Amino acid sequence: MAVILGIDPGSRKTGFGIIHYHSGRSEYVTSGVIRLPAVALLPERLRIIYQCVSELVELHSPGELAIEQVFMAKSAGSALKLGQARGAAIVACVARELAVAEYSARQIKQSVVGTGAADKAQVQHMVKVLLQLPAEPPEDAADALAAALCHAHTQQSMINMAGATSVRRRRMR
Amino acid sequence: MAVILGIDPGSRKTGFGIIHYHSGRSEYVTSGVIRLPAVALLPERLRIIYQCVSELVELHSPGELAIEQVFMAKSAGSALKLGQARGAAIVACVARELAVAEYSARQIKQSVVGTGAADKAQVQHMVKVLLQLPAEPPEDAADALAAALCHAHTQQSMINMAGATSVRRRRMR
Repeated sequence: MAVILGIDPGSRKTGFGIIHYHSGRSEYVTSGVIRLPAVALLPERLRIIYQCVSELVELHSPGELAIEQVFMAKSAGSALKLGQARGAAIVACVARELAVAEYSARQIKQSVVGTGAADKAQVQHMVKVLLQLPAEPPEDAADALAAALCHAHTQQSMINMAGATSVRRRRMR
Repeated sequence: MAVILGIDPGSRKTGFGIIHYHSGRSEYVTSGVIRLPAVALLPERLRIIYQCVSELVELHSPGELAIEQVFMAKSAGSALKLGQARGAAIVACVARELAVAEYSARQIKQSVVGTGAADKAQVQHMVKVLLQLPAEPPEDAADALAAALCHAHTQQSMINMAGATSVRRRRMR
């Protein structure tokens, strides 16, 4: 069984979600949003992200982190803020030896909704359906869970592909 | 005595410098450049920065981090990379309870060279002079030491101002 942590970092809110993945089935463990106090200065904001992610890792022992790759930010200013939050979250994971997998927003939406052009509401809806949740999680938590699900599905495709290859090989003998 | 760590983070090279500061005197302790392998992926790069800065903190027990504030980056892409490196370095310090002070490039140059418009070579030269080094440190290490010196000078100004205030208060009684 794989324990996958998904993170959707941001300078104001950082979403997180943890799933168990085993034999093609994903199971919800926990999710939430780390909200950063508006009055907090940068070092305090980064400390909060680092500490909360560290605590999640200590508590649930995920082996892998799935995180959205950022290609384009709105501005240099917002890219710097996002980068700092992203750096703090990733470091909390790599310091505890998690493997990190990055996926584009398109890959995540494709994997969870079936189209790379899906909107936020569709992602929230499909995360609820796929993980059999009683309600849709908040946007940032849903994005984090979607990244974790994308990673689980990608791992499964690789296992299937490896399986198909070994079947082909066996037949060729 | 204050032990001050200066850091000049970057996605390829991160400069660092440590000084002791006591009664208006700055003393060089160590400095260097953390070079990130060109082939390393993002998580590995951030892990290296975090680990090296953590080791510096463990070894020299600085109480304060001085770091250049970033107002403008060249592009959103470079701002994201710089932000991630900056986040990794800052987190290694705040996780070990260092106080963080940010200074603009202008403040650092003003404090070390005497003019906010100084170029890199002037900063390297003045860092060598102020810390009585046998040679100019490499650019990134010099920038990190300059941030540490700026912090030391700023602390001293505040002590002087506090001193002046208490003298005035005493005279007024």
